[in-house]
Amino acid sequence: MKFRLYHYWRSSSSWRVRWALAFKEIPCEFVPINLLSDETESPAHLARNPMGYVPVLEFLEQKTPYPFLCESVAILEWLEEVYPQPSLLPGDPFQKAKIRQLAETINSGTQPLQNLNAVQLHSSDPEEQKKWHQTWIKKGLHAYETLAQQTAGKFSVGDTLTMADLFLIPQCYNAKRQEVSLESFPTIQRIHENALKMESCRVSAPEAFQP
Amino acid sequence: MKFRLYHYWRSSSSWRVRWALAFKEIPCEFVPINLLSDETESPAHLARNPMGYVPVLEFLEQKTPYPFLCESVAILEWLEEVYPQPSLLPGDPFQKAKIRQLAETINSGTQPLQNLNAVQLHSSDPEEQKKWHQTWIKKGLHAYETLAQQTAGKFSVGDTLTMADLFLIPQCYNAKRQEVSLESFPTIQRIHENALKMESCRVSAPEAFQP
Repeated sequence: MKFRLYHYWRSSSSWRVRWALAFKEIPCEFVPINLLSDETESPAHLARNPMGYVPVLEFLEQKTPYPFLCESVAILEWLEEVYPQPSLLPGDPFQKAKIRQLAETINSGTQPLQNLNAVQLHSSDPEEQKKWHQTWIKKGLHAYETLAQQTAGKFSVGDTLTMADLFLIPQCYNAKRQEVSLESFPTIQRIHENALKMESCRVSAPEAFQP
Repeated sequence: MKFRLYHYWRSSSSWRVRWALAFKEIPCEFVPINLLSDETESPAHLARNPMGYVPVLEFLEQKTPYPFLCESVAILEWLEEVYPQPSLLPGDPFQKAKIRQLAETINSGTQPLQNLNAVQLHSSDPEEQKKWHQTWIKKGLHAYETLAQQTAGKFSVGDTLTMADLFLIPQCYNAKRQEVSLESFPTIQRIHENALKMESCRVSAPEAFQP
């Protein structure tokens, strides 16, 4: 085994990486970090990721004092570069840019505002927390829908799975948890249905890792 | 002229792209979008970016109904792919991953929580807004400092400018605006001093575009 992934079953950023590993058929050992406990602030985890977040990929055969790689985008781009087939970034540079544009609509435009830390600092009132979640999810998915209408086939860009879908589908899972319906997003709904049929999606989904 | 960049002088994400264009000596026309006005919600701007944000790069010679590219990461990766020299992502895949990890510590870990929309939805009280800003800037810069101590020379990764620095320095500019001192971050401080000596940094800085 070359890799160990520190992750949390319901973390959308963790799902992105689990999915890429499954899609590229890269063996990996999974170690859960409970985001609801103080495990994230333990010295052992902060040594892996000073932000205290997941996912973190550990390189078990790497002879370096720092064999950890944090941040899902950095991990996914590395996996794509070193294990290019099957590709999650197909096409010419302009198409790759459109894939990354969609991924970023979730990665920097939507998900960070749903981080547990941020939601809890915003308010301790569960109703106010839900309103906050819903505001950012709706804004993000509305933008994604508009952009994806320009590029989507069966998936976000064309008819094959790309990195963009790995950001979208876990965000849809969060939308459901926060009671945001996908009904007003027909393109996203179609992509969502097609993605859930894929084995690499199902074996990497939160349900498959629920404790 | 092949490109037009919609930007805002004080937007840190806009500075990242202006800096890359200057570093790679790519000519570009600049069109300001005032983030403090309702220009961001105008139909013309939403057609460029359904999130209403900047930067947006317009491809003036592209024969496509959608010649716009949003999201600084997608734009920077595209520029690096099509204009690889001078490189902002030098080294082997593992070093590139470390560069992207640092960039993401700011891109998804810090900056999104400082978006005007988010800060204003959190609170309308200026004191509370400043506390919010400071919390996330300190957390992000602390993580960046810890990670950069593992890789930095004159810059965040080694002795040459990389994509990571293009995320860090605009965030330092925001830190100053929010009265977060860089004193407890010696590595960041050193990188900051070295970066400010670069012409590509100075000509792309907010001061150079202040109306």
